Amino acid sequence: MPGYGDNKEAVKVRLRRIEGQIRGLQRMVDEDAYCIDVLTQVSAATKALQSLSLVLMDDHLSHCVAEAAAEGGKVADQKIAEASAAIARLVKS
Amino acid sequence: MPGYGDNKEAVKVRLRRIEGQIRGLQRMVDEDAYCIDVLTQVSAATKALQSLSLVLMDDHLSHCVAEAAAEGGKVADQKIAEASAAIARLVKS
Amino acid sequence: MPGYGDNKEAVKVRLRRIEGQIRGLQRMVDEDAYCIDVLTQVSAATKALQSLSLVLMDDHLSHCVAEAAAEGGKVADQKIAEASAAIARLVKS
Amino acid sequence: MPGYGDNKEAVKVRLRRIEGQIRGLQRMVDEDAYCIDVLTQVSAATKALQSLSLVLMDDHLSHCVAEAAAEGGKVADQKIAEASAAIARLVKS
Repeated sequence: MPGYGDNKEAVKVRLRRIEGQIRGLQRMVDEDAYCIDVLTQVSAATKALQSLSLVLMDDHLSHCVAEAAAEGGKVADQKIAEASAAIARLVKS
Repeated sequence: MPGYGDNKEAVKVRLRRIEGQIRGLQRMVDEDAYCIDVLTQVSAATKALQSLSLVLMDDHLSHCVAEAAAEGGKVADQKIAEASAAIARLVKS
Repeated sequence: MPGYGDNKEAVKVRLRRIEGQIRGLQRMVDEDAYCIDVLTQVSAATKALQSLSLVLMDDHLSHCVAEAAAEGGKVADQKIAEASAAIARLVKS
Repeated sequence: MPGYGDNKEAVKVRLRRIEGQIRGLQRMVDEDAYCIDVLTQVSAATKALQSLSLVLMDDHLSHCVAEAAAEGGKVADQKIAEASAAIARLVKS
């Protein structure tokens, strides 16, 4: 089970909502909506994805990383290096 | 015609691709994909949205803002204040 | 005169405050402050720089870009391409 | 000893370099440097702070969080909640 196992439905609801935002953006562009209105919706979808990533990262640290760290050794080091790399991708995206 | 008028098809292609990424994420979560793999895809979708926002902003500055600035007066000031607010939302999202 | 000409003192005050934050960080590290406290201060300094960049960008659009756009022609196009590139650097940093 | 204990000198070198960037920015503003050149340097300093924050976070996860997780219990949960909150501040700054 992945770290987000207990939140799976909530994660899926968030993703469906984000999919709705992206479809809404396609309609706006189809209807020649004003640039700033499109940009505002792009910022909202970006924030929703960022917020989802923080939920997923918290779940990952609380479950996968915590369990690996409890076991210790090479697996623990590897999980933490992997989490740090994912945090770097989030911060830079 | 909005600032992205000449790039409308390209903007729609980008949005369809991002919609595909979000649907892909829903499948990954359904299949209990590993947290880090999900997070990597969330970062990729976030970067794609960010990149789209930069295209839209460049189009907006090149057309809507440039035209308003050429006219000058209150409309110009207003368009620039509006663009600055949108830039702030992008930088903070 | 640069776009921030009228705000020069305010920009300098902000930069001095950020310099103070960076020196404060050096003291914290010297005194072996707790990682999370150091990270909180790094986030605060990052936000202060980001906020300064939005002020500078607004001044630049309101003055340099607006004036170039009013003149039109190649200079206008160039100023807008240059502003878009700077916005991209801000969004990605 | 904080998580960055083994990297303390490297962290201090990075902070001194960032302090130098901020002082350089003050000189640029004093000399009425062109907005875009100032903005480029602000982006560079922001990136340097962001990069430092990723080093500090990796050290924190590798030491403080890993040790707390190995012990388990409430302290582990608390350390992970605290790290998640710090990651959220980084992603949003």
